[in-house]
Amino acid sequence: MTQSNWWLNATAPLSAASQQQAQAHQDQLTKPQGSLGRLETVAIELAAMQHQVKPQIQQAHMLVFAGDHGVVAQGVSAFPQSVTIAMLSNFVKGGAAVATLCKQQGIALSVINCGTASPCAHLANIIHQPIMPGTHDFSQQAAMSAEQTLQALALGQQQIERVQAQGADFLMLGEMGIGNTSSASCLSALLLKHEVNALTGAGTGVLGAALTHKQKILSASVQRAQPLVKTPLDALEQVGGLEIAAMTGAYIRAAQLGIPCLVDGFITTAAALLAVRLNPSVRDWLLFSHHSAEQGHGTLLAALDAQPLLHLDMRLGEGSGAAVAYGTVQQALTIHNHMATFAQAAVENKA
Amino acid sequence: MTQSNWWLNATAPLSAASQQQAQAHQDQLTKPQGSLGRLETVAIELAAMQHQVKPQIQQAHMLVFAGDHGVVAQGVSAFPQSVTIAMLSNFVKGGAAVATLCKQQGIALSVINCGTASPCAHLANIIHQPIMPGTHDFSQQAAMSAEQTLQALALGQQQIERVQAQGADFLMLGEMGIGNTSSASCLSALLLKHEVNALTGAGTGVLGAALTHKQKILSASVQRAQPLVKTPLDALEQVGGLEIAAMTGAYIRAAQLGIPCLVDGFITTAAALLAVRLNPSVRDWLLFSHHSAEQGHGTLLAALDAQPLLHLDMRLGEGSGAAVAYGTVQQALTIHNHMATFAQAAVENKA
Repeated sequence: MTQSNWWLNATAPLSAASQQQAQAHQDQLTKPQGSLGRLETVAIELAAMQHQVKPQIQQAHMLVFAGDHGVVAQGVSAFPQSVTIAMLSNFVKGGAAVATLCKQQGIALSVINCGTASPCAHLANIIHQPIMPGTHDFSQQAAMSAEQTLQALALGQQQIERVQAQGADFLMLGEMGIGNTSSASCLSALLLKHEVNALTGAGTGVLGAALTHKQKILSASVQRAQPLVKTPLDALEQVGGLEIAAMTGAYIRAAQLGIPCLVDGFITTAAALLAVRLNPSVRDWLLFSHHSAEQGHGTLLAALDAQPLLHLDMRLGEGSGAAVAYGTVQQALTIHNHMATFAQAAVENKA
Repeated sequence: MTQSNWWLNATAPLSAASQQQAQAHQDQLTKPQGSLGRLETVAIELAAMQHQVKPQIQQAHMLVFAGDHGVVAQGVSAFPQSVTIAMLSNFVKGGAAVATLCKQQGIALSVINCGTASPCAHLANIIHQPIMPGTHDFSQQAAMSAEQTLQALALGQQQIERVQAQGADFLMLGEMGIGNTSSASCLSALLLKHEVNALTGAGTGVLGAALTHKQKILSASVQRAQPLVKTPLDALEQVGGLEIAAMTGAYIRAAQLGIPCLVDGFITTAAALLAVRLNPSVRDWLLFSHHSAEQGHGTLLAALDAQPLLHLDMRLGEGSGAAVAYGTVQQALTIHNHMATFAQAAVENKA
């Protein structure tokens, strides 16, 4: 039985001492101080998280949470809902972008079914924990009940505990769910008290008149939900998604257990924002991978005071941007841990 | 004996057919079209270069060219000139940033001494081909003679032929030479007919009054050289560097042999610009790794119509930015070559 309000529990502390030592170490490496830019800062941030001057990643784990969205009945997506299940299969068979990147880099991959519209329990190698057969159409009613919202949060919590027990010490979350940019846009609008149209983009490829239609549906959805939303959890219940709720719980639990998380794109960042609204010090444990091409991501990043590592015009989701930036993080650690110091290399420091 | 004017010889052709086939392949992969952004475009560019739909890199090679600069006598660098030789040793011993990144990623590394101020032939595992003991002080006289300039170009040419014979099919160039941002700034100013102060930055860490001094010296150097410069080669002779000339020859030879080159930061981009000015279709064979934090790099990139993959606030040189972006290129190829198509994965395409 999950403790009530578990998400309010304290997150693990960072080590200011390790951070300072890591900075001092960087300044002794054979290069002008600061000349490796973001590669230096990300290594130093990881030192603070891992409480050691030379941080290392032993086992990175990507968890892809999937769920369907009732709002697709309103015609807000360019792809049919059946794609959610088809892609679940594509993840575990290795054909999806995120799967190829995980295999290339030795990242463990878990795929979690949080609730698809049609049953898919026959698909192997997926963790099936469906909470409901997709959310309700949030343009008409709450996406989930309060109880289902808490179940989805707890699903994320439990998945983090599971992979931690297996040795995961660096996490990335990804998502799949036709319609989930719509949910992320509405959720963000309610959390930030921001005009939803400015946070609504093409998603999988909704353009022109279809985008105008999507904006109209989302605008009406936010208008419907707004009076019912007093807390961040209310927003999740009204316009969230099962996979978004699970990722929110996952980010919080990872921070409580002291495991760094590399955030992916628009939808994961919406979940991260919600996690930080529920428990502000979750922010300490988040690294940001990339600035997505999806409309609205920049606003979410700014709200989290996040400066992502990469800007590659990606807008796929699935955790694919995090998987790309994982390579950059590993390069930062290679430099931090293996470069020679001025003394070791007998290189004279500044004139 | 090197053929005279060899740098004017035609570069290898790209394959428009392979480019189109690679684009069509990308559009069949299980993702919304274009949703992998720059990862898609770089894979397609490589397809055109390699004349195959699914490009692959068998052996990447990093060549670091080093040379000293007489202009450091004017106090334009934050580090003493002895650092050039000390870093040569640090490259081959594995302690320098670029060396750690090459080792991590299986990139072959060659270090070429094009001419250091003090002799260093005793250092092992370095290709010693010194043309002169560093350039002359270009604030007072031409950096090199016309003959030395051609020798340095040919050195780059020969190094590319050497690594091609060893099987290299993807190249990165790096550089080392205390004072070489000064040379790159003056060279760029002369090639672009651009105010040199706007192209002059901190280099290894020249700030405040020292930067004002550096700008004054470079401004006078450009003023001295300007009347003597009628051609791009004149500019190289007047204010160039041995390593910059060698890289210029290397970029040209790589393009003639049809080997893609991933350009690093400010100094390598100045060499690439010179190569393109000498032989415009060299541009076809260049990929750009990162936008450096060094003042002036953006102007050079714009002049080459280059959109680099990364923007990590790096400003080290050595080829380190290219080595980081090499990881991104490999990820792009992993996706391009290993993702499932809609048909293979039985995923429905757009609604």
